[in-house]
Amino acid sequence: MASRRFDVQTLGTGAALPARGRYPTSQLLNIHDSLFLVDCGEGTQERLREAGINFLRIGHIFISHLHGDHYLGLQGLISSMHLMGRVQPLHVFGPPKLKEIVDLQLRASGTYLRYPLHLWPVEPTNGAVIHEDTKVTVTALRLKHRIPCTGFVFRESLALRGLRRDRSAVIPHFKRQAVKQGEDLVLPDGTVHSNASLTTAPPPVRSYAYCSDTAFEPELVPYIAGVDLLYHEATFTEMLATRAKETLHSTAAQAARIASMAGVGELLLGHFSSRYKHVNELLAEARAIFPATRASEEGQVYPIPERTGVENL
Amino acid sequence: MASRRFDVQTLGTGAALPARGRYPTSQLLNIHDSLFLVDCGEGTQERLREAGINFLRIGHIFISHLHGDHYLGLQGLISSMHLMGRVQPLHVFGPPKLKEIVDLQLRASGTYLRYPLHLWPVEPTNGAVIHEDTKVTVTALRLKHRIPCTGFVFRESLALRGLRRDRSAVIPHFKRQAVKQGEDLVLPDGTVHSNASLTTAPPPVRSYAYCSDTAFEPELVPYIAGVDLLYHEATFTEMLATRAKETLHSTAAQAARIASMAGVGELLLGHFSSRYKHVNELLAEARAIFPATRASEEGQVYPIPERTGVENL
Repeated sequence: MASRRFDVQTLGTGAALPARGRYPTSQLLNIHDSLFLVDCGEGTQERLREAGINFLRIGHIFISHLHGDHYLGLQGLISSMHLMGRVQPLHVFGPPKLKEIVDLQLRASGTYLRYPLHLWPVEPTNGAVIHEDTKVTVTALRLKHRIPCTGFVFRESLALRGLRRDRSAVIPHFKRQAVKQGEDLVLPDGTVHSNASLTTAPPPVRSYAYCSDTAFEPELVPYIAGVDLLYHEATFTEMLATRAKETLHSTAAQAARIASMAGVGELLLGHFSSRYKHVNELLAEARAIFPATRASEEGQVYPIPERTGVENL
Repeated sequence: MASRRFDVQTLGTGAALPARGRYPTSQLLNIHDSLFLVDCGEGTQERLREAGINFLRIGHIFISHLHGDHYLGLQGLISSMHLMGRVQPLHVFGPPKLKEIVDLQLRASGTYLRYPLHLWPVEPTNGAVIHEDTKVTVTALRLKHRIPCTGFVFRESLALRGLRRDRSAVIPHFKRQAVKQGEDLVLPDGTVHSNASLTTAPPPVRSYAYCSDTAFEPELVPYIAGVDLLYHEATFTEMLATRAKETLHSTAAQAARIASMAGVGELLLGHFSSRYKHVNELLAEARAIFPATRASEEGQVYPIPERTGVENL
């Protein structure tokens, strides 16, 4: 059976000016053993190496916007994948201008990639489906920043229904897949077993939302409502609320308010301004509003555990 | 009196595919307390931070060519300088396409730099003067690579002549600068002291040549003849001479042959392929031909000491 992992690994927690041992933004998602990279600041390939990730396994990269701290590591990663002999296609989703930037630099370096590189233009439209495969559906969020900026919601695909152990003897082998998919069982003698009598509901679908960079933006709430984990930038504390407003970033309190309004499971903060030596202050500010808050740390993995459904004893 | 330092600091010794703790190419030159950056692979700003360098002090950056491992850290460095409040102009010398790449990415990020950024197109013409100021003259080398690639020779300006301690009483204060500059001393009573009787020759001018990336290219020899320190790439050993030829890189032996033909003071190797776990093999191969060879190491500083002239006792 395929893995049902759903992990978010933080590769960088810094803001525009890297400092204090913080790296620019990048996150690696492992969803059912498929790897997705979200943003790719300078040095991301080094971070991946440090974390022991074989980055040839990354199939899809999502770039939120074209501020350097969110994408300047992409060109080097594309190039390293080429030098490492990648043959699998790579899909990169990002602002329309990204294709021009990547292509210009590939041409300038005289590089003809050995693998197919697909650069898909993404517009920040709330709820628009960007990517869909057997494991995950990715939708866009319209973040509020100085340049067009897209957030992403990752929703895993629904698992198959579980076979009840006490009834599994009833089901012929060749019918198991159909029953798992929700069909009733009709035996050769005409007996009908309802699906509900044979199976347990699949665990609830898990989801993760990524909101960086953005000002306080309540319009996001319906699109991230109820996600298991929300990553929301928290560049400043409330003391610098004016600076946050000017630069279209968020305070930790604002991130917590969004988490609270959206009723998310857990809130993960990041994109910390280099002026904060420690993140305690940011964390405390958010927890006062939304207690289930964590501050992301370089290299740390945040798994979203599978919740067992009520019927799934 | 201004510092007469002439230091080369290696920030990265790796080749195209960073690995084994090696970083992509970049070097920091301190010439008389002016800082010059030569190439700027991904993560160079992080290397500079690790080395404790205030990179706002860098006034000039020289980019050899547009393979990613030699320039992908430039955009992030330009951006960080902006965020750190730089106001001093920055001069970047590189292939003509570099301006297009930098400008495109500045536009895409909506950045209006607070400091003047000058991107000067450089053609790889042997001996052509690229930059000249009171401390240094930089000339170009035509390297032999898959895409246009420029090497650089840094020559310090000639120091003033030294005043002989035993004769300094003869020279009126207001005449000292003129005598240091080589003038004879004419006293009010008509007495003439020849400059040679009052001064010692300045120490010989020091020079550094940077040759990366390049195939074996004897045409460089007259332009790097006699430099104190030659940095020459040594991507492979002779065992992979065919691979070196195909990729227009050099073997360690070829680097040593160039050093020998040019009669340089010392040879510094770098740009090591990630297939070499240790550099001993590359170093041994070069030393067999040119004994005064060193393998560059991440973060290491290679000072070029001032040689005392014969007359300068």
